[in-house]
Amino acid sequence: VTPIIWDDKNNVLTLLDQSALPFETTYVNLKTPEEVSSAIKSMKVRGAPAIGITAAYGMVLSIISSQNFEEALSSLSKAKTILDKARPTAVNLSWATSYMLSKAKDLVDNGEARNVGELISLMKEEAKKIFDAELEAELQMGIYGLEKINDGDTVLTQCNAGGLATGTGVGTALAPVKVANALGIKVSVIAPETRPWLQGSRLTVYELMTEGIPVTLIADTAVGLVMYKNMVNSIMVGADRILSDGHVYNKIGTFKEAVIGHELGIPFYALAPVTTFDMKSRVEDVVIEERDPDEVRTVRGVPIAPEGVKVYNPVFDVTPPKYVTAIITEKGIIYPPYDKNVRKVIER
Amino acid sequence: VTPIIWDDKNNVLTLLDQSALPFETTYVNLKTPEEVSSAIKSMKVRGAPAIGITAAYGMVLSIISSQNFEEALSSLSKAKTILDKARPTAVNLSWATSYMLSKAKDLVDNGEARNVGELISLMKEEAKKIFDAELEAELQMGIYGLEKINDGDTVLTQCNAGGLATGTGVGTALAPVKVANALGIKVSVIAPETRPWLQGSRLTVYELMTEGIPVTLIADTAVGLVMYKNMVNSIMVGADRILSDGHVYNKIGTFKEAVIGHELGIPFYALAPVTTFDMKSRVEDVVIEERDPDEVRTVRGVPIAPEGVKVYNPVFDVTPPKYVTAIITEKGIIYPPYDKNVRKVIER
Repeated sequence: VTPIIWDDKNNVLTLLDQSALPFETTYVNLKTPEEVSSAIKSMKVRGAPAIGITAAYGMVLSIISSQNFEEALSSLSKAKTILDKARPTAVNLSWATSYMLSKAKDLVDNGEARNVGELISLMKEEAKKIFDAELEAELQMGIYGLEKINDGDTVLTQCNAGGLATGTGVGTALAPVKVANALGIKVSVIAPETRPWLQGSRLTVYELMTEGIPVTLIADTAVGLVMYKNMVNSIMVGADRILSDGHVYNKIGTFKEAVIGHELGIPFYALAPVTTFDMKSRVEDVVIEERDPDEVRTVRGVPIAPEGVKVYNPVFDVTPPKYVTAIITEKGIIYPPYDKNVRKVIER
Repeated sequence: VTPIIWDDKNNVLTLLDQSALPFETTYVNLKTPEEVSSAIKSMKVRGAPAIGITAAYGMVLSIISSQNFEEALSSLSKAKTILDKARPTAVNLSWATSYMLSKAKDLVDNGEARNVGELISLMKEEAKKIFDAELEAELQMGIYGLEKINDGDTVLTQCNAGGLATGTGVGTALAPVKVANALGIKVSVIAPETRPWLQGSRLTVYELMTEGIPVTLIADTAVGLVMYKNMVNSIMVGADRILSDGHVYNKIGTFKEAVIGHELGIPFYALAPVTTFDMKSRVEDVVIEERDPDEVRTVRGVPIAPEGVKVYNPVFDVTPPKYVTAIITEKGIIYPPYDKNVRKVIER
């Protein structure tokens, strides 16, 4: 899948509309920061890295018709404000807009951009660098992860940590599967639906079917049986945050896969770029976000439970290091003991 | 909840329409075996014991206006054929109709029923005995299970093994909770939604809310986190089949709760009447039923995945004896080693 397409000739950012997936494959063409902001807000693009890349191009779009440096820098400032508001808690978003703004100032200040035309060109390159850095990190994870995949393997995943979430088409958890498939190694995926948001049934299944990679959808209740029946060779998931001692925070449901894998001797791998590591927090410090109970009381707007039932709806769970066979990053594979080895690898 | 009500004066069987739950609480009044058969077929009543009780009353309804023994026995034969067709694979159904038919023949043959009026009365008693035997077994399980519940406990369950499934209002897995609640012992329940059929969100939640027992609904993905966060004191589930060595077959999703409970030191109890034991089969022999892929591709008719995605949709999973802390039956609690102790208790 190619969720983010930049048309460098016509200066148009095209996004695969993820809010309509998997029922409709539609694209939206964006020409202004306002349009980009609105696309982010309405979840047409989602996933931290994908939002970052999109925002960077949103910044580029703000200066396409600028006549001079002053106008360009003012447009960038305005665009940053507009874009940052789209998803205030998305760290990658404000990181990308800040980076692009300060880069523009540098290019002007140090004379690298000699006129506004050059500034626009160089800013396009910067946005592309963000995309390329993400893609390269994912391909690296995929290559490291290849070591853990044998021909004919089936990988159990969770949620969507694929190329839709990252914007590159590759992904984190699915990177080894993508690389293996590209190399002609046979690999298939079991995707749990991943309630309440159904990223598994909606996005992972869509992404893999589109790319011709064999995928089987299961209800979340069936994760245990597929492992018990030896239908799974390894578990590969993404991560939202990894602590220095190896605790892995990821989409709710990950922990159960890790524990069952541990019990049955199926390796469990978390795949994430080194930016995912939180070297300061301890497990006691991290608060697990809870979301709207209606996400559990309904499915796509249809009620599935009595109105007003009490609900506990945590977004993430935490998998203790005991159950994590290895953490695969773009800088290499980290094995236990994590409290020693995490630092060694991510500080490379 | 009272899912099955027999009006002995007016000869009317009233069923709580479970197919409309939890969105509508409606009852249907049935006066003929044909109406009973149609109610079973359209899932207005579900759960093996509930279907058995309903079918027994369906047999009674067939002879209410019989004028003589010949007519009554012929009506019962006809009614059995009609009722058995409603759910051909439901063992309790054909067991109940066979039992009622042969009982009627006995009552006539041995002269216990001296006229058709007496036959009708005695047959009503037989149907009530089936109901009462079920209720008594469940209350016994509830009383044995009380030993495993402390004041203030939270019980994690799976699916609906409550009084809706058994027809008595008590249930198997939920029997200790019901008995505890009746005795003023504080106990609450965490109910996973239990995809794909959502018996947890639709039925267990409805049943407990109706009875004023505190219940919290979670997505199936959250079972691990609630145990990790010490929100669960014990796991109590029903069973569809238990082997003589302690392998427990139950609704898909049970196994994952058992493994995580085992790993985290939370006891796992299967509750089932002794009729659930299959003393002949070995685990290798039991085929796990798979159902229509569309159950996973949709929720209440609404699509949640790309059309045509490959699906694996097993109905049950199997929990090996290693993860089963005890099996609670109406004849007592069975502890490991099961290959020795199952026989001792169920042959009491």
